[in-house]
Amino acid sequence: MGSVKPAVIRIAGISGSLRRGSYNRGLIRSAIEICNSIKGVEFVDADITALPLLNTDLEVDGKFPAPVEEFRQKIASADAFLFASPEYNYSIAGPLKNAIDWASRGQNCFADKAAAVVSAGGGFGGGRSQYHLRQVGVFLDLHFINKPELFVQAFSPPPKFDSDGNLIDANVKERLKQVILSLQGFTLRLKGEGAVAVE
Amino acid sequence: MGSVKPAVIRIAGISGSLRRGSYNRGLIRSAIEICNSIKGVEFVDADITALPLLNTDLEVDGKFPAPVEEFRQKIASADAFLFASPEYNYSIAGPLKNAIDWASRGQNCFADKAAAVVSAGGGFGGGRSQYHLRQVGVFLDLHFINKPELFVQAFSPPPKFDSDGNLIDANVKERLKQVILSLQGFTLRLKGEGAVAVE
Amino acid sequence: MGSVKPAVIRIAGISGSLRRGSYNRGLIRSAIEICNSIKGVEFVDADITALPLLNTDLEVDGKFPAPVEEFRQKIASADAFLFASPEYNYSIAGPLKNAIDWASRGQNCFADKAAAVVSAGGGFGGGRSQYHLRQVGVFLDLHFINKPELFVQAFSPPPKFDSDGNLIDANVKERLKQVILSLQGFTLRLKGEGAVAVE
Amino acid sequence: MGSVKPAVIRIAGISGSLRRGSYNRGLIRSAIEICNSIKGVEFVDADITALPLLNTDLEVDGKFPAPVEEFRQKIASADAFLFASPEYNYSIAGPLKNAIDWASRGQNCFADKAAAVVSAGGGFGGGRSQYHLRQVGVFLDLHFINKPELFVQAFSPPPKFDSDGNLIDANVKERLKQVILSLQGFTLRLKGEGAVAVE
Repeated sequence: MGSVKPAVIRIAGISGSLRRGSYNRGLIRSAIEICNSIKGVEFVDADITALPLLNTDLEVDGKFPAPVEEFRQKIASADAFLFASPEYNYSIAGPLKNAIDWASRGQNCFADKAAAVVSAGGGFGGGRSQYHLRQVGVFLDLHFINKPELFVQAFSPPPKFDSDGNLIDANVKERLKQVILSLQGFTLRLKGEGAVAVE
Repeated sequence: MGSVKPAVIRIAGISGSLRRGSYNRGLIRSAIEICNSIKGVEFVDADITALPLLNTDLEVDGKFPAPVEEFRQKIASADAFLFASPEYNYSIAGPLKNAIDWASRGQNCFADKAAAVVSAGGGFGGGRSQYHLRQVGVFLDLHFINKPELFVQAFSPPPKFDSDGNLIDANVKERLKQVILSLQGFTLRLKGEGAVAVE
Repeated sequence: MGSVKPAVIRIAGISGSLRRGSYNRGLIRSAIEICNSIKGVEFVDADITALPLLNTDLEVDGKFPAPVEEFRQKIASADAFLFASPEYNYSIAGPLKNAIDWASRGQNCFADKAAAVVSAGGGFGGGRSQYHLRQVGVFLDLHFINKPELFVQAFSPPPKFDSDGNLIDANVKERLKQVILSLQGFTLRLKGEGAVAVE
Repeated sequence: MGSVKPAVIRIAGISGSLRRGSYNRGLIRSAIEICNSIKGVEFVDADITALPLLNTDLEVDGKFPAPVEEFRQKIASADAFLFASPEYNYSIAGPLKNAIDWASRGQNCFADKAAAVVSAGGGFGGGRSQYHLRQVGVFLDLHFINKPELFVQAFSPPPKFDSDGNLIDANVKERLKQVILSLQGFTLRLKGEGAVAVE
């Protein structure tokens, strides 16, 4: 507790959408860029595209399929998580839930770490998925930040994303940055390194 | 309204677990057997094992991958649904959510039909997944029966399933039958064929 | 089934806010006006202001306090319900939940009836309260319509309510009417009087 | 960080049931007793019986009715909260939600503090109310502990409570103690006083 050099935390970013042009993938790309300018934060993109559907029959002698092992490794080595969680049918996207389920098998890779969730979509901007994800976090033993929340209403003017799914709205970028700073602060607080590292 | 011969409804059963020995698959197998003895019900097993992870980039010219087309066909041709929904990490299993998401794309195959959900598991017997699934049903425009609910506490004595995941408990079988009868009744009621077919 | 004169259904409207100028009370007042122009619908305002906090010690010899008896009577005599459910702290308002709890004691006055929920508020327009209320409906055995949903974002331009809380936005009025028509249709469908009464 | 004398935290206990013989009140009484034997914890019973139904018309010149002021004072002076949250109709009890709503008005008295929730009841032992309460906590900016959870199945043998609602089951008492210890630890961790104060 209280090191001389600033603590560095590692945030794993997880987009719940596999689609190339997805707005939620765009949020993760934007987070990568934002984190380059935040001292004390390392960001790793924990891609879920290659994962098979969860089937515990695929676990052999305690070993997971290779893409699962790789994903679990990224989750296990992170201090905190940023979920970009699209809302499909008023809940968490199937592929995101599938990825979370894999990383919770056996040794739960999420346990006792900090997390934040953002989303982009129509209507509530993905909001319904966020509350289901928070309930999942109870079992995973994730500590979600409460504030600020970010729901990007992707289809309300002005345009928030370009046609490749890149976040182009300065206001949303700033709000995403505030989410990440809050996550950083909460992660350090949980680690007992309160105000030390941020400066 | 009010045909001479009894109306026959088709129920599609969907197990959210892919594991061969899964208790939730066992509930679906038991439902198949039970339906053989209920007049006016046809049961089809809508297996989700072969589905890819949802990725809308896989949709080409409005066509879905072959296993998705086949699954959607089963959903579209059903009058009602019986979900056996395991609880993974306090919510719907990834593979089940993934299957539902595929069948809701484009022409929503679930719209305005009746549904019931049962589950087997520890703790609440899968209960937390059921309430998330009911919220999904709002968007899908599913009409879930409210009663009876069935949460099978799979790990409390006496044993409810054998080692192959077959339901062996007579009391649970009877309660599963009551769920199916309630679903049949509600399906007919929504179709405007109330008391006619049950006889 | 199929009476000669059109079936008339009674909808009980319940506003979850007690405040005089409340927007959610405004939605109920607007619903009363709308129902005057819909054939086959009678609307009763089931006011919850006079109810005490739920305390089963207040039940004596199976009798409820007088304001509770009066409220329960209105609920029991209705065929369907329209909830105007404000969102307080991301869930159902205390006074609304309190009223529902009173009407469910002993003989559940809501059982097997149709319901709809609308809301006005900031952010999601009261949306988070609606999904909690739908879960409450499972135990009450309410059959909520799925569509259309109505979330009135009360603080986004143009103004939706005047300073007395009266709904003044024509577009929202029309959407509220569509909710009521959908509720009427679903109520009749559940009663087995499908297309008869609407004409 | 790291004071010489052990930090003392104040936990406010809130029972959501008003009934004298309530099991959830019994859980709070048991918590009081347990806390007498835990170093570094002060417990205050924040009774909600005298509160009026929330109606913001009752707020005059920023002042709340006297019972509300008194309740808010207890909440504001606490470092952490223990909710005993009965499940009424698959959600939070009306009186509990009402109390929370009062304490969140104006200056939110819960902000950035730790919390835990326990419950007693049939079925899931009150579990459905706990997840709704956790969602309420997001807006209140409460940090709920994730583990252990405590759902007391009040009607399963052996008897957990006597006829006055007193907790008499040693195993449940021990589990309640573990919840309180976890809450104490998390409160200190959030305050940056990690392992220092315990013992």
